[in-house]
Amino acid sequence: MPFHTHRFASGLQLIGETLPSARSAAVGFFVRTGARDETGPESGVSHYLEHMMFKGTPRRTALDVNRDFDRIGASYNAYTSEENTVYYAAVLPEYLATAVDILADILRPSLRQADFDTEKQVILEEIKMYQDQPGSEAWEHARKIYYGTHTLGQTILGTTESVTALTAEQMRAYFDRRYVASNILVSVAGQFDWDAFVKLIDDKCGQWTDAAATRTGVTEHVGPGGVHAVVKEGVAQEHVLCLAASPPAESMMRYTASTLAIAIGDDSGSRLHWALVDPGKVESASCGVDPSQGNGMLAASYSCDPEDAAENLAIVRQVLSEVQTGGITDEELLQAKNKIASRVVRYSERPMGRMRTIAGSWMYTGEYSDPDVELARFDAVSLTSIREYLDKYPVDRLTVVGYGPAATLG
Amino acid sequence: MPFHTHRFASGLQLIGETLPSARSAAVGFFVRTGARDETGPESGVSHYLEHMMFKGTPRRTALDVNRDFDRIGASYNAYTSEENTVYYAAVLPEYLATAVDILADILRPSLRQADFDTEKQVILEEIKMYQDQPGSEAWEHARKIYYGTHTLGQTILGTTESVTALTAEQMRAYFDRRYVASNILVSVAGQFDWDAFVKLIDDKCGQWTDAAATRTGVTEHVGPGGVHAVVKEGVAQEHVLCLAASPPAESMMRYTASTLAIAIGDDSGSRLHWALVDPGKVESASCGVDPSQGNGMLAASYSCDPEDAAENLAIVRQVLSEVQTGGITDEELLQAKNKIASRVVRYSERPMGRMRTIAGSWMYTGEYSDPDVELARFDAVSLTSIREYLDKYPVDRLTVVGYGPAATLG
Repeated sequence: MPFHTHRFASGLQLIGETLPSARSAAVGFFVRTGARDETGPESGVSHYLEHMMFKGTPRRTALDVNRDFDRIGASYNAYTSEENTVYYAAVLPEYLATAVDILADILRPSLRQADFDTEKQVILEEIKMYQDQPGSEAWEHARKIYYGTHTLGQTILGTTESVTALTAEQMRAYFDRRYVASNILVSVAGQFDWDAFVKLIDDKCGQWTDAAATRTGVTEHVGPGGVHAVVKEGVAQEHVLCLAASPPAESMMRYTASTLAIAIGDDSGSRLHWALVDPGKVESASCGVDPSQGNGMLAASYSCDPEDAAENLAIVRQVLSEVQTGGITDEELLQAKNKIASRVVRYSERPMGRMRTIAGSWMYTGEYSDPDVELARFDAVSLTSIREYLDKYPVDRLTVVGYGPAATLG
Repeated sequence: MPFHTHRFASGLQLIGETLPSARSAAVGFFVRTGARDETGPESGVSHYLEHMMFKGTPRRTALDVNRDFDRIGASYNAYTSEENTVYYAAVLPEYLATAVDILADILRPSLRQADFDTEKQVILEEIKMYQDQPGSEAWEHARKIYYGTHTLGQTILGTTESVTALTAEQMRAYFDRRYVASNILVSVAGQFDWDAFVKLIDDKCGQWTDAAATRTGVTEHVGPGGVHAVVKEGVAQEHVLCLAASPPAESMMRYTASTLAIAIGDDSGSRLHWALVDPGKVESASCGVDPSQGNGMLAASYSCDPEDAAENLAIVRQVLSEVQTGGITDEELLQAKNKIASRVVRYSERPMGRMRTIAGSWMYTGEYSDPDVELARFDAVSLTSIREYLDKYPVDRLTVVGYGPAATLG
């Protein structure tokens, strides 16, 4: 597949992949900033700022931003993670230039005081809404307990207190510090012309200024261990998360990590599926990896009747202990590889999938994520590399967090 | 795009669309049965049966079913709606025949008593889990109140009581009545050979027996009107649904209905967005249509602080009343059309999207859903057809259901 890159004088980077069979195009602006880059008083500012981006620029009111996106039928959105804030749109090819015009414009927002005050109420409502969702609350508590004072434990939404206290001046200072040209990557995939696209970005973003946007606290971390029961009455299910260290996003061990997580806790046919879901002991159980810059986390999780939470935890420990001691089988490895091949291929059929994949790879490794190379690397995962993984990142060295009515997990 | 159909002597129907640029294939078995086809004592049996399909056949144990799917890396699943139960898989082309072998096999399940007993606990857990999700509970109550004794008000999951009381004999009788050849459609899309596929289905499903699977209660329905507050303490948000009649899935008015719903309550740039979401009055607000065989429903919904629920309801009523009286503008119509064009094209880029789209169209209208024809029909929606829609299905003739702490909605 034709992959292209370009670096502008400002420091802004651009990557793209053309897909001749596509009937649409997807474009995203990836800003390397998120909850982990916030100081204490700024808690929640990355996510709040993401909302504010849609509230207007010198050229557009909030109404214009929405109308202009809507007029071209764009599917557009944004999200904030612990370390990235991403703005993206998928459109028909004839509207790609307009989509870029809007995205580039909103990335230089007005941040007006009146809009800031109005949006604060939206953010506070969103915080409340998530408090109603036990699965999401369980994760918030688990990350905080696992990471302690490490920056990856910082909450994305912020708290009612931090968001209430936040000022527009603090937000502007954060914006000036983080939304600099060299801290942003533009990614495009699908039906488009590369040369015209480079010119378009130069035209729309050529004036962006730069500065050094450093990230501190990029260190590996292992959780404190132990079992932590966060008691929450009034919900029916207990949510339990078992967390262990795993490789960072830039590590070549990431292929082994993903493969192993599938063997342990994929939706179907995994160890946790057979031990917990199939016999009806839990509502759901899974295992996944959450790789970040400099540090990763593996999470085995389940939700069940609070009365069964302790018994099920003993089963999860047993499953992970067996994997730690004996690894996985040839058959499990083959299954995991076929699942990954199928997912990589199917995800690659969409411009939006490719746009995100090439951006993720470029940001963490500076490499082009060629689907065939990716498939070959997954195919190279072996029982030996699984053993090496387990020796370096034991899956039975757990920090356990329960959220729900159970006062103890045994 | 090359579209093919075939009807076997048994009554089983097959449709397919080949996509030369696809690198995968998707296949689905669509059974025309769901909650609306259940008698009172059978409540929940369609969904429970869907789970049981994965528990084994004369040729495969539950373990084999999962292992065989997993071995080929299939992305497979099933779901049950008010009127359809669907089993599907997406795979690499070289594994399509294996995927069909498994799907065809599990559609003739053993339904063993021991598996039935074990799975009952899983279903009861699932019912509990949904009770923890206010958004989902709100919908359950709203459908029940809107539809009353109409079959479309029947719950998909069933109740703790109905599922507890259900016997394996009742499930077998339901299966024999509903899973007959002429009540099933097979749909395939992506990278595959049509002639080989017809032969494959004949080989795997040729012995399926047939009988008349009728559906009763296919009548149009209008809700009772009024405002119904279902009080639920302990959740932070009030969920409010405003329901009105809209055209059935087989109606040619469906294009107008979808277009109007986007103008009223799409995520962005819609009337409800500007009236409620943008000023921060609610956490979320939307409008959508839910077309079924013989009857449709339009739902405008929002969630917010319980204290603001009544005031926001007045705003929703005002928005809908203005639409009812004055229709929408040219600009709103253009926006809605561009959004639909973009969504239809992007959804069509995936074999899974095409497999589902052609099946839905075929089941309700007996027509091939050609993307270009679909786009042309959406493009033909006019202010005149919007007016005709509103005259036939007034959007201000509402049944309102609130779920949350609010005792009254004003």
